[in-house]
Amino acid sequence: MKVAILTVGDEILIGQVVDTNSAWMGKTLNLSGARVERIVSVGDTREAIFDGLKEALRGTDVVLMTGGLGPTKDDITKKCLAEFFGVEMVFHQETYERIVKMFEVWGRLINEAHRLQCFMPANAEILTNRMGTAPGMWFEYRNQVVISMPGVPYEMQYLMDNEVLPRLKNHFPGQPIAHRTILTVGEGESQIAEKLEDFEDSLPENFKLAYLPNLGQVRLRLTGAGSDASELDKVLDERTQVIINRLGDLIYGYGEDTLEAAIGRLLQERGLTLATAESCTGGYLAHRITSVPGSSNYFLGSVISYANEVKMQVLGVPSEILETEGAVSEATVRHMAEGLLRTIPASIGISISGIAGPGGGSDTKPVGLVWMGISDGKTTKTFSIRAGKDREKNIQYFGVHALNLIRRFLLGKL
Amino acid sequence: MKVAILTVGDEILIGQVVDTNSAWMGKTLNLSGARVERIVSVGDTREAIFDGLKEALRGTDVVLMTGGLGPTKDDITKKCLAEFFGVEMVFHQETYERIVKMFEVWGRLINEAHRLQCFMPANAEILTNRMGTAPGMWFEYRNQVVISMPGVPYEMQYLMDNEVLPRLKNHFPGQPIAHRTILTVGEGESQIAEKLEDFEDSLPENFKLAYLPNLGQVRLRLTGAGSDASELDKVLDERTQVIINRLGDLIYGYGEDTLEAAIGRLLQERGLTLATAESCTGGYLAHRITSVPGSSNYFLGSVISYANEVKMQVLGVPSEILETEGAVSEATVRHMAEGLLRTIPASIGISISGIAGPGGGSDTKPVGLVWMGISDGKTTKTFSIRAGKDREKNIQYFGVHALNLIRRFLLGKL
Repeated sequence: MKVAILTVGDEILIGQVVDTNSAWMGKTLNLSGARVERIVSVGDTREAIFDGLKEALRGTDVVLMTGGLGPTKDDITKKCLAEFFGVEMVFHQETYERIVKMFEVWGRLINEAHRLQCFMPANAEILTNRMGTAPGMWFEYRNQVVISMPGVPYEMQYLMDNEVLPRLKNHFPGQPIAHRTILTVGEGESQIAEKLEDFEDSLPENFKLAYLPNLGQVRLRLTGAGSDASELDKVLDERTQVIINRLGDLIYGYGEDTLEAAIGRLLQERGLTLATAESCTGGYLAHRITSVPGSSNYFLGSVISYANEVKMQVLGVPSEILETEGAVSEATVRHMAEGLLRTIPASIGISISGIAGPGGGSDTKPVGLVWMGISDGKTTKTFSIRAGKDREKNIQYFGVHALNLIRRFLLGKL
Repeated sequence: MKVAILTVGDEILIGQVVDTNSAWMGKTLNLSGARVERIVSVGDTREAIFDGLKEALRGTDVVLMTGGLGPTKDDITKKCLAEFFGVEMVFHQETYERIVKMFEVWGRLINEAHRLQCFMPANAEILTNRMGTAPGMWFEYRNQVVISMPGVPYEMQYLMDNEVLPRLKNHFPGQPIAHRTILTVGEGESQIAEKLEDFEDSLPENFKLAYLPNLGQVRLRLTGAGSDASELDKVLDERTQVIINRLGDLIYGYGEDTLEAAIGRLLQERGLTLATAESCTGGYLAHRITSVPGSSNYFLGSVISYANEVKMQVLGVPSEILETEGAVSEATVRHMAEGLLRTIPASIGISISGIAGPGGGSDTKPVGLVWMGISDGKTTKTFSIRAGKDREKNIQYFGVHALNLIRRFLLGKL
């Protein structure tokens, strides 16, 4: 199955929005065995959309379009599609009723712009969008399929996962391709590649190992193609087991798992609870932990002690420590972790204090320096690392590092 | 000047890399008055590159290519360009000497792969790359210009700023295009469009208004083209002023501003400090606030009271309230906000308690329901809204709503 992606919207051409949708679709399609041949981005004009459609349809089986389905005047994709296919626009009652209901829940009245959103090209099969007002559309055109989705990332993703991919699988049954994704944390891409060098060299030709690094985490994707799906599964499982044996507890999960969900499972298995005391991460670590559904079963809460007064008054860090050692120090994070467990009586408390940047660094304490402490009330361990200069990346990297400290603490590997 | 961007590389098609280069080029070109007509991404094969080139050249003045210039086997852009233009590859001595010198500085010896990098299509004008080994190339072809640059973002950016843009300006002195971006929060795309309907209809033909909605925020972009840059600026400012008058305090900023940075400015202007008490947002609000450099000037900290014990013991919410009214209630968020200011003595405290989902909802308190309280220690105001069913979206939406409450509180508009 050869796919072209066509994104519609001036905001991409003028660089106001980075086209993450195409990357997401490319990755998702690739995992399901389809090949993206071409990505084309065009502006919000009739000529550009016609042109882009023709270009995207050339030599492909499927065109996935995003963008231009909103209720405003610059959203003309639907009209262009109707004209391109030579059909009328017809009112789609079901969509109208769905939008009316959505608005009722929000306590709002539907307006004219949204009523106009319910007119659809007559040849469209409607794909219900449970994440927003504009539905997706499926068109069959000669031997090709054209699919139109909203450009809002989570609406597109919902439609892809729930409507588009299952239909494409029916429409174009192909050669089985399968994947295993192995999730690691704590070492870099090149260290892991070194551990797997001979494994990679020994892979059969129709197998491939890809490394996807991101801020202290590396995702490994083993892909195989074969003629028999169950044989393919068996070989993939065997090869995956080799990786598991090699990498050991660098691995925190598989597939779509997350580090925060892995920690949640470890805590629940052990009947333990968690709290955080954060300075430079400013709530990011707590946010990651609480992004997991059901995290209220093991996460009690946090003290975000951005100001030194909060470190002293809520966490009980002695003022002398802050004066002599500074807020970013081994002694401060030790007191923060221990004080946290007195304020919030969790089984395990983790503390973070560092310099996220861009300001606030010095020769002895540069931007990117961070101290962390972890305590179970009996023993407290402390660690420091040094990251880069970018504030946003530092906050994220510190968060991942802290999550991994919690994980290793729970595994008895700290 | 009409431009097409052509990016070469399988990593973009399979979504392993997000195409930030095109966004950067789009923004940069746009600011210098050029119009990107089309972005095309293709894979690392001869057929795909030829195909992409033809497509990119159709109806444009300039094609900006990135990618495929490295020293490895899958980097074939240069060879394809030579074939496309019907010229030989010739050795470029200056480039060779430059690379040898670079390697000397790094204490490394040049290898064969890098020597091969010095062969260039005979018709290329070489653009010196001071950031890496592969130079850029400038080709003139019929009335069009084709420029090839490495895909490494900072190398491409160096070449664009120092070589490509100055040359393009000489080559195509053109018509100015300019933008104004207006950032709003608190109403949806269609409500704002209703307020601006006649304004949009009255815009001159070379002006355009675009809406970019995202979770409670809508970004408006007004674009104009004209023959005279200062006249265009004047008209854009006048039209922008009309939008400002219509939308009033729905507007929180302009251009690349953020809601959290806007709140930071308001707090600093007034010499006020802020703290948060978060239940269902789990630190997301604090994370947004502390993502702003310098936020330690006005943000004191947070109590993330995920568990009821923390609501009682750290924030002083009476246990009777939690028992009779529940954790998600007007009374609870009132006590949380007031208790927060006793624990962390900020000027303003905001509290949030809701049901992010997917579990935990009931008939009377469904998933998506949230209560918020805001207090300055004298008066406390409370609000509730209802969002959707997706946990991640809910947390983000609640965060944006809370940021807007803080903003309106500071503006005296609550």
